[in-house]
Amino acid sequence: MTINDPAVIAEVEAAFMAYEKALNENDVAMLDASFKDAPETIRYGMGENLYGFGEIAAFRSARSPVGLLRTIERTVITTYGDAFATANTLFRRESMAGKVGRQSQTWVKFPEGWRVVAAHVSAIAE
Amino acid sequence: MTINDPAVIAEVEAAFMAYEKALNENDVAMLDASFKDAPETIRYGMGENLYGFGEIAAFRSARSPVGLLRTIERTVITTYGDAFATANTLFRRESMAGKVGRQSQTWVKFPEGWRVVAAHVSAIAE
Repeated sequence: MTINDPAVIAEVEAAFMAYEKALNENDVAMLDASFKDAPETIRYGMGENLYGFGEIAAFRSARSPVGLLRTIERTVITTYGDAFATANTLFRRESMAGKVGRQSQTWVKFPEGWRVVAAHVSAIAE
Repeated sequence: MTINDPAVIAEVEAAFMAYEKALNENDVAMLDASFKDAPETIRYGMGENLYGFGEIAAFRSARSPVGLLRTIERTVITTYGDAFATANTLFRRESMAGKVGRQSQTWVKFPEGWRVVAAHVSAIAE
């Protein structure tokens, strides 16, 4: 198993950055398209625990688009073989003064492309 | 790619439960053995952001063993192929009244066995 094959990393980075852009713009269609449409997909969010793609999509459509802009730092994407990856990043928002956010994603490559199968978002004091 | 092959799930469940037991007992050697010894390994904890196995191991050895007992619920382990898995669970501790913990792990099977390559732990209000 090759860890961090440059071609695979490039694919995941593109998917990761497309997700990041969609998040900042609250592009719900793109956010939905980034997550695997499966009952196993899980997203632990800043204030909610979502089990299954259905709960995740429902959360996205109901979410306020206000204040989602953020900057990211210490982003690490690691690939294992050609179909598995993790992406971890810290982030900051103006609305989160004194706190640093953390976002963890597990990505899997399916026939339809790279999709997030598990995500966890939280914030802690700096 | 087979999702949730029963034999693979059984392997990951065993590794997951061994980690859970070690956590409750603060068995630092076993906790260390559960995480991949690599600079890419990341653990976002309840109050710390740890990059690399070295930071994670240092945190484990310095951690107070008091109040680590917990119960878990809504645990979902999903395997992708025979070497990649996610494990997500909620948890509760007596010291965390009114809050529910969330733990996300990404497991990869290496020649030495299943190891956590990324983990994220946080808590939110119920």
